[in-house]
Amino acid sequence: MPNPFFINSGPFNILEILKILKINLKIEENQIVKDIKDLFSAEKDCITFFHSKKYNEIAKKTKASYCITTQNLKDHLPNSCTAIVVNNVLISTSLVTQKFYPNSIEDEYDNSVSNINDTNFKDKVIAGKNVLIGENVKIGKNCLIGHNTIIERNVQIGDNCKIGSNTILRNSIIKNHVTILDNCIIGKKGFGFFPSKNKNLKYPHIGIVIINENCEIGCGATIDRGSLSNTEIGKNTYLDNQIHIAHNVKIGENTIIAGQVGIAGSSTIGNNVKIGGQAGISGHLRVGNNVEIGGGSGVIKDIPDNAKVMGYPAKSIREFLKDNR
Amino acid sequence: MPNPFFINSGPFNILEILKILKINLKIEENQIVKDIKDLFSAEKDCITFFHSKKYNEIAKKTKASYCITTQNLKDHLPNSCTAIVVNNVLISTSLVTQKFYPNSIEDEYDNSVSNINDTNFKDKVIAGKNVLIGENVKIGKNCLIGHNTIIERNVQIGDNCKIGSNTILRNSIIKNHVTILDNCIIGKKGFGFFPSKNKNLKYPHIGIVIINENCEIGCGATIDRGSLSNTEIGKNTYLDNQIHIAHNVKIGENTIIAGQVGIAGSSTIGNNVKIGGQAGISGHLRVGNNVEIGGGSGVIKDIPDNAKVMGYPAKSIREFLKDNR
Amino acid sequence: MPNPFFINSGPFNILEILKILKINLKIEENQIVKDIKDLFSAEKDCITFFHSKKYNEIAKKTKASYCITTQNLKDHLPNSCTAIVVNNVLISTSLVTQKFYPNSIEDEYDNSVSNINDTNFKDKVIAGKNVLIGENVKIGKNCLIGHNTIIERNVQIGDNCKIGSNTILRNSIIKNHVTILDNCIIGKKGFGFFPSKNKNLKYPHIGIVIINENCEIGCGATIDRGSLSNTEIGKNTYLDNQIHIAHNVKIGENTIIAGQVGIAGSSTIGNNVKIGGQAGISGHLRVGNNVEIGGGSGVIKDIPDNAKVMGYPAKSIREFLKDNR
Repeated sequence: MPNPFFINSGPFNILEILKILKINLKIEENQIVKDIKDLFSAEKDCITFFHSKKYNEIAKKTKASYCITTQNLKDHLPNSCTAIVVNNVLISTSLVTQKFYPNSIEDEYDNSVSNINDTNFKDKVIAGKNVLIGENVKIGKNCLIGHNTIIERNVQIGDNCKIGSNTILRNSIIKNHVTILDNCIIGKKGFGFFPSKNKNLKYPHIGIVIINENCEIGCGATIDRGSLSNTEIGKNTYLDNQIHIAHNVKIGENTIIAGQVGIAGSSTIGNNVKIGGQAGISGHLRVGNNVEIGGGSGVIKDIPDNAKVMGYPAKSIREFLKDNR
Repeated sequence: MPNPFFINSGPFNILEILKILKINLKIEENQIVKDIKDLFSAEKDCITFFHSKKYNEIAKKTKASYCITTQNLKDHLPNSCTAIVVNNVLISTSLVTQKFYPNSIEDEYDNSVSNINDTNFKDKVIAGKNVLIGENVKIGKNCLIGHNTIIERNVQIGDNCKIGSNTILRNSIIKNHVTILDNCIIGKKGFGFFPSKNKNLKYPHIGIVIINENCEIGCGATIDRGSLSNTEIGKNTYLDNQIHIAHNVKIGENTIIAGQVGIAGSSTIGNNVKIGGQAGISGHLRVGNNVEIGGGSGVIKDIPDNAKVMGYPAKSIREFLKDNR
Repeated sequence: MPNPFFINSGPFNILEILKILKINLKIEENQIVKDIKDLFSAEKDCITFFHSKKYNEIAKKTKASYCITTQNLKDHLPNSCTAIVVNNVLISTSLVTQKFYPNSIEDEYDNSVSNINDTNFKDKVIAGKNVLIGENVKIGKNCLIGHNTIIERNVQIGDNCKIGSNTILRNSIIKNHVTILDNCIIGKKGFGFFPSKNKNLKYPHIGIVIINENCEIGCGATIDRGSLSNTEIGKNTYLDNQIHIAHNVKIGENTIIAGQVGIAGSSTIGNNVKIGGQAGISGHLRVGNNVEIGGGSGVIKDIPDNAKVMGYPAKSIREFLKDNR
């Protein structure tokens, strides 16, 4: 699937890419690189990146023609993939992503918007005052959009959706029967950058936010879009007020998340999970299916299916209650 | 007091109500049911509900003509009250409430609003740009309302109130001398529903929010209205920024609540209470008068009057400091 | 530097000031007091305050002509400074500050604003719909301002800044190359008042917010202005979403703060600090340079340079992990 939101500025000649990376590499000239993708989804003529031995098995089977990697890892790549050895894989990947998707670094407001009354949605959508709609937006049947809400360019909204007031949607796909309440900001770039003295280097975010059928998103939510993958919320999952979902997070179906919870980047939450108010989940964790996490908990390691945990750091609720009798 | 915000679609014939519940009951026909209320406030010709033995004593004295309850509890009801025995009292109550108050399930934006300059408030209220006012709003003397703020239908605001910018008021009564700062959302429905695979059943919220004299509400607050009872904040209570108050919470007078605190549904906080930043209070708890709760605490049981607590779970501050020396 | 945002209603005759404080003092008549400042920055003909022996050394050298203080502390003042002895220094200081700066108590919306298209910024700034700009605002070259954003009177914005949508700036100086995302409220008064039964006494806030070069402020931030000193964020410091920074906080350079963190009043955070999501820092603390604070931590005492801490209360991360094995 081509990226639905960010326009690929490529293809580029491989020499242009090597120039950005300040790499001199004996390489066949006039080779075209058409996109940057992760190891798994990259096809022939794409460039990818490989920065941790965790991904050895996927790396062996990549179809990418080029791969930004390190001296230590490069031998895992197949013969069909030319290694581009760099000092810092993530910074180099960031620079190349920025070349392909220059608009994915900043979150500038969408200046393509018009008042909904000046668009074709005027008679199709029931909308409040001062609603702004960007170019190439799709909105299904029977939708409501509250006052002062901004639907930026390319956003897709299904049928029977209710969007509150003062909400901003950007780079997102909203499926049918979804309710999003007031003051939400959905689809802005994640908090990703390479720290650097005096001027951090911002990481591109070409992922999107997908909210599936029957979800409800409470007031004041911030749900950031992914960097290279997407942020996704499964069907019939309900979020209370003031929740923060960071980039690349995946949340399953039928999950319930109480107020002021925060989920850090790239964590995965299963189906039928219940998370109590103010709990926090650290980044890059896996929380299984049917898990219950008590209010105020701080989860700092993976949680297996069916576990009930509480505390900071979160442990089995039985242990928590015993320790705190 | 009739509900000031939600229009009662009743009265209904009792047979119509039994039909919703799919109950066959030998019952006198042509009986009218005029409203649904809790055990305590229900009058003759009302229907109520009774789902926990905690309420035995109140049930014995209810004036309701009908009561949704269980096989085990029904014998506590007085003879004047006909028991309607169901499997799940709360789901059945929800269905009947929805029948009486169909507009209490969703939080659709108020499409009755007009720009304040097109209303009678034009010369009475000092208002910023793009202020929207719904039908049947009352605003007292000497009030200020900031830019882009939305006062939805039926809201009542007293004298000498200051409402900030980008704030949304709904289903609320604001007394005199109240300050509400920017970006607040006050009076939206609570986070209440019956989880159900694929499509949760949303719970009606026919309660309101009452904010009493001299209160200050900080920026970014979310204060949800009650389900059957109200959410209420006592006189001269001050809330800092980014606070979440869930449905049915009652907060006393002269209480001080620091930033990012969250109070879960149906908890009661006393008078002269101090709550430090980021503390969380679980649902259905009672925090007494003159209590001090340290910043970051997680309160998971009732706190008696005059106690000073801290920690997660919160315990006496003396014990907390001893344990953490 | 004269206060750039709050207009000094003075000078006042010292007798007028004594009258507010209900103090009878044998004093040379017709003396003029031109401003109220802290012990360190007060000059001749200013009034200052001195309420804790922590400030003995600074008090000895103050250049102020008058000082609100206590019986116990007054002997530390130099002969050039007349002590005004009161029961409660902070309340008295508040009353006098309010006399000089009557507009610093409340946060009324700025009614001087106009739509940017009706101002001189129309062709200079790239702005979204419904952007409001107050009197005497300065905006540098090459700036973007998103939809519905309000830049209140006197705010100064440097070159190459990007301000999101639905954001409110007040009493703030924003330096070059700063990004502020959506739904932020920057520069409102802090949560400072003297609790008093039935009607709290609000504390004046004549400090401002300064955000230095290359910072990024995430969505939904609340950054309160200082009371007598400023709230300041150092160069190249990045804040994630939903962060609360209270009055008088100083944050250093190159610091990284993850989502939902709260920093209570008057705390100081060093350079190159990393703070994990949902951590809280109590008031009046000093966090050193190069400190790392784990997500969810509750910091309740000073942290020395280079420390790595975690937990609630926060302790060395080594200890935290050992205790929680």
